[in-house]
Amino acid sequence: MVSSMCRLSGVLALLATSLSVVSVNGQTFQRLGSCPTLGCILPPDQQDFLPGQQFDIRFEVHAPKNGSEAFNDGVPDEKFTVTIAKDGGKPKSIASFFDVKEEPSLEKWTFSWYEDLFAQDANTPSVVNVASKIYRRVALYEPGTYTVTLNYYSGKTTTATWVVRPLATKKKAKNVILFIGDGMTTNMITAARLLAHKSINGKYQSTLQLDKFPTLGHQMTHSIDSFITDSANSASALYTGHKTTVNAMGVYVDSSADPFDDPKVETVIELLKRIWGSAWGAVTTAFIADATPIALTAHTRTRYEYGPLIEQALNGFSNTSWTKMDGPDVYFGGGAEQFLPGAGSYQGKDYYAEFAKKGYSVSLNKTSLDALPNDKRALGIFCKSNLPVWLDRNIFPENTLKLKNDPSGASGPAKDIPGQKEMTLKAIDILHERGGKDGFFLMSEAASIDKQMHALDYERALGDLLELDDTVRATIQKLSDLGELDNTLIVVTADHGHGFDVFGGADTKYMAAQHDKDDRHKRSAIGVYKEAGLSQYTVEQPGVSYNTGPNFPVNWDPRYVIAAGAGAAPDHREQYGVGKDGPRKPAVTLPGVGASDYYVNPADRPGGFVVNGTLPTNESQGVHSLTDVPVFAQGPCSSNFGGVYSNTDVFFKIAECLGLGHPTNKTISDGGKGNGNGNGNGNGNGNGKGNGKSD
Amino acid sequence: MVSSMCRLSGVLALLATSLSVVSVNGQTFQRLGSCPTLGCILPPDQQDFLPGQQFDIRFEVHAPKNGSEAFNDGVPDEKFTVTIAKDGGKPKSIASFFDVKEEPSLEKWTFSWYEDLFAQDANTPSVVNVASKIYRRVALYEPGTYTVTLNYYSGKTTTATWVVRPLATKKKAKNVILFIGDGMTTNMITAARLLAHKSINGKYQSTLQLDKFPTLGHQMTHSIDSFITDSANSASALYTGHKTTVNAMGVYVDSSADPFDDPKVETVIELLKRIWGSAWGAVTTAFIADATPIALTAHTRTRYEYGPLIEQALNGFSNTSWTKMDGPDVYFGGGAEQFLPGAGSYQGKDYYAEFAKKGYSVSLNKTSLDALPNDKRALGIFCKSNLPVWLDRNIFPENTLKLKNDPSGASGPAKDIPGQKEMTLKAIDILHERGGKDGFFLMSEAASIDKQMHALDYERALGDLLELDDTVRATIQKLSDLGELDNTLIVVTADHGHGFDVFGGADTKYMAAQHDKDDRHKRSAIGVYKEAGLSQYTVEQPGVSYNTGPNFPVNWDPRYVIAAGAGAAPDHREQYGVGKDGPRKPAVTLPGVGASDYYVNPADRPGGFVVNGTLPTNESQGVHSLTDVPVFAQGPCSSNFGGVYSNTDVFFKIAECLGLGHPTNKTISDGGKGNGNGNGNGNGNGNGKGNGKSD
Repeated sequence: MVSSMCRLSGVLALLATSLSVVSVNGQTFQRLGSCPTLGCILPPDQQDFLPGQQFDIRFEVHAPKNGSEAFNDGVPDEKFTVTIAKDGGKPKSIASFFDVKEEPSLEKWTFSWYEDLFAQDANTPSVVNVASKIYRRVALYEPGTYTVTLNYYSGKTTTATWVVRPLATKKKAKNVILFIGDGMTTNMITAARLLAHKSINGKYQSTLQLDKFPTLGHQMTHSIDSFITDSANSASALYTGHKTTVNAMGVYVDSSADPFDDPKVETVIELLKRIWGSAWGAVTTAFIADATPIALTAHTRTRYEYGPLIEQALNGFSNTSWTKMDGPDVYFGGGAEQFLPGAGSYQGKDYYAEFAKKGYSVSLNKTSLDALPNDKRALGIFCKSNLPVWLDRNIFPENTLKLKNDPSGASGPAKDIPGQKEMTLKAIDILHERGGKDGFFLMSEAASIDKQMHALDYERALGDLLELDDTVRATIQKLSDLGELDNTLIVVTADHGHGFDVFGGADTKYMAAQHDKDDRHKRSAIGVYKEAGLSQYTVEQPGVSYNTGPNFPVNWDPRYVIAAGAGAAPDHREQYGVGKDGPRKPAVTLPGVGASDYYVNPADRPGGFVVNGTLPTNESQGVHSLTDVPVFAQGPCSSNFGGVYSNTDVFFKIAECLGLGHPTNKTISDGGKGNGNGNGNGNGNGNGKGNGKSD
Repeated sequence: MVSSMCRLSGVLALLATSLSVVSVNGQTFQRLGSCPTLGCILPPDQQDFLPGQQFDIRFEVHAPKNGSEAFNDGVPDEKFTVTIAKDGGKPKSIASFFDVKEEPSLEKWTFSWYEDLFAQDANTPSVVNVASKIYRRVALYEPGTYTVTLNYYSGKTTTATWVVRPLATKKKAKNVILFIGDGMTTNMITAARLLAHKSINGKYQSTLQLDKFPTLGHQMTHSIDSFITDSANSASALYTGHKTTVNAMGVYVDSSADPFDDPKVETVIELLKRIWGSAWGAVTTAFIADATPIALTAHTRTRYEYGPLIEQALNGFSNTSWTKMDGPDVYFGGGAEQFLPGAGSYQGKDYYAEFAKKGYSVSLNKTSLDALPNDKRALGIFCKSNLPVWLDRNIFPENTLKLKNDPSGASGPAKDIPGQKEMTLKAIDILHERGGKDGFFLMSEAASIDKQMHALDYERALGDLLELDDTVRATIQKLSDLGELDNTLIVVTADHGHGFDVFGGADTKYMAAQHDKDDRHKRSAIGVYKEAGLSQYTVEQPGVSYNTGPNFPVNWDPRYVIAAGAGAAPDHREQYGVGKDGPRKPAVTLPGVGASDYYVNPADRPGGFVVNGTLPTNESQGVHSLTDVPVFAQGPCSSNFGGVYSNTDVFFKIAECLGLGHPTNKTISDGGKGNGNGNGNGNGNGNGKGNGKSD
């Protein structure tokens, strides 16, 4: 499947381009992220592994033909050798250590990159020839420290130190529910609380469900080769314990052009399915092939391979040796484009039919979602693209009727769309029944916190954050009703942030009255400190009632609104207050100016004032930020989630709680005895099996 | 003293103005914060108390003469009555409940305010006549819920529900050290880590000391009457468990003009001194009369009464009945203006001499700080105004020589200035010796995280954040050396945030090379996502070595720097990278334009691009933001600091750990027996005593 995916993808040219933007001194611009030397080990130095977690290892030797690193006339050393040693012991060759039956063949390719912005402007790429080998599907079973040494060019060495974490064979939580508020920061949580919960004289009369969690942590979200991450990369860190590169998932990114040949690492879902055979599902308000849900099963360097990644989720990797996967028990979200036969689906096939063939119930609206049987696997695709946001579904539903997103492929809008709460509660019913005594793992994503923050549409982002919080609240009640609350580890976290914060209030009536004044004058409608005042979103106004429950604002459109912003934005206008006509588009290209040169959208916030941007002018939206993001935990093992740690530690904490760190190649089909070598050199060669529950 | 302070202050006119900016509908503009009705109870509804915590109660009846609330021809009801009932029991008159010997006299005054920005533009204030009484120095000793009812205008009622928290009589921590990173957010902590700690392939090789704390919480910082706080208000919440209004400390703000007659609440220091006689101190990198240090002892509605507040800190309140205070054991910081005889000091007196008269050792530089005896009380004032920041003291010391801040009053710069670490370690030595078995309380503030964030000088702010982290690290080592680590609760938190975040990297060389291009083109020097790259601040460059230790950047001035910003700013220019010539001044007034109308500072970041602001143009700097801020805790009681709570809960958690919640009016002089009434109606009328340790 790998090669066919490659042919299908047509992204080779794109990849060559994106790899081009890489550093003079191994910093901002990089020849290959995680490989500052001419010899590369992937996984690189300083990586941690769960005992028994399967992975591929790639070695590369680089010979730059030109540029500041030019070496050996551009001829890479094809006779490189590799050794591995445990805890300072005697090094063994990599092949004998992992008992590799057949030495992998040598691969060769060429790539190019720019050393800095000056080189990019001058179009003077540096070209690199590469010799490489990849060892597929190995694992380290014994906890300890492993030193891998690549010897090349007769005397050069590159070393990688790997740590295998302690064994964890006991399952302490029957179920795990991982909520991801995509792009969600503490700043946003604070703002959402302000909008939805009434405060009297500084004391909140009710709070977010997140505020009630007993344990709070912070996780660091940075990439392996950049301090700012995207959602593919960070989701992958949460699910595998391995950081990677922007746009990659479930792999370390090598320098070859093929988006599916990069060295893989096993995900929490693959481990859980192989070791315990538990049920699993994904729920998202994005399209289901989007990074956060798809990274549960995906192994690719480019998140944009939507069709092939749905195929990977349903049928696993068919033509390289890898943990056998057989599809989720629950898959709810948007993204009909990858299911309707056509350009968006893998090989043009009808993936509604492909899922149905494997016994899935298929639902395309909230009514049929509610009616899904709990004992069958379920696919629910409720629209094309992302789900309309909570604010449009609940407060301004007329905006949803403007869309052409019917998941059946018919023209017109999707109607009868569920939200995160409805999808999540149904997912729990199905997973609880199908998982039985083996329990389940559910990832439920509030995707549009991120998507609307990108658009600088703060109210829509905060609406979806409140929907997430309401979903968590309802989930706790549901688990309690099912008698599963004490058996379930609930973790709520994010994958990265945006630099959003509220800095004051704005008087929308006063701002509107300054329409004939200049932009500087309009800013006097903003109040800071004492003049920020109190939240009016919780104050009932005559004629305003949304009936969306006690955990949402009673008035989304008060006179006095929050004034908020981020340090990173394209050119845009600020007027403050909710956009009633649908999601915001802050910047646009202008006729005759340039295809990717973004200016203030003349139609957006026309009564506001202009804020010129801080981002390169080819960015149409806000971008991700550096900040650590919060982790809220309750249930079994939750006390391990306090303090500050890496996003990869979220994986290790969950994996430890699920008992996924085994000294053998445990698979559900062999009763847990395993056929790997318990002395650190087992080779998990293709013996994974499905769990036999598929129907 | 109150009346003389009043005369000295000359802020009556100012106050009338600032009170003028207050809500049509009790929201952004407010007649009196925390009093939406015409009858006011201060402390208002929904306030919590520590058992035995002393406080004043003010009642006001308002009669607006004009405006939307005009009532009773502007004649306030002077015959209002008040009752109080515990846990739904029978209401008693307030005087009999608190056993008040002498009914307070009726006070009357008039104030005015604007109902909104339109009224302010039109200069049409609403005028309010007031009748009021204040009951001084009472306390509630029995845990439970109290309902206070104000009856006025023959039938109107205003009700306040107060909760007295559980008793806490056992001292669980001998010592408490509270570190406050003023304005410090999680976003800033993340950025500081990136600058100072090296990461290899996504794994930090060392971390902040804060990252090692076992317990993490978030606290909500909002004011009682605005969702954005200042540092006075929020410090007061941390120290008293009571939120108040912007610029106020240790009081609920009433509507009278006198800045010292507002109803007071006892602070943690006053409680600790009265109940246990422990030693206490304050360390700050600000001037010592600044809000965060002075709020430990201050009771005023205006933080700008610097001279009188130093007098309060040294001698307490002399002419109203209040907990007797006799000065700190340690007081280290800047702010010589309040100590040198002259306009900045109380009654023009020499406060170096006033402190010395009470037996204090006085130090004016680091050398004499180091030599201070540990058995005497100590005052250390190391410069005028705020201390120069860490970055200027350590990396660009030439900037400190440009200042005229000698604390002795001589012309020229202060030299030999200690930092937060040196001050804090010496403070611990003195407090440990002087506190003896009774332990100590130390507040140590990193003030310029906030001050430099206001100036958009991100590197200077982060330098001081790293100094705070280094101070915490050294403090833990010092406590360990003294054998006090296990006896000491250490809490590190902030008082509020700024909307700062890092969103990418910037190539300063490339930006500089675009000097002849337009502002939009300069923005192409910024890299986001993958192009943000890795931190170069941790990469040693030839010729660059600062010798500031392993927990600070090795290069503050790399080619590739962080690109950061905030959503709230005045007009300014961004160039990114450290300012070598001293702290930044992003916006200035321009000749002939307006005394408080701020534009881009032409001298600041001249090679950068203009970012027009989002703040009213009378703001010269960035402003505080809404975000919850982190709380890190270790030591006794630290497990209580997890999760999400109000800033006032930080006080209650510390007070509970220090055993400050007593059922009697316990004072150190009466052996802890107390003379209050244990049934909820004790009146602590003037029986507080100093602890006799002053020398």
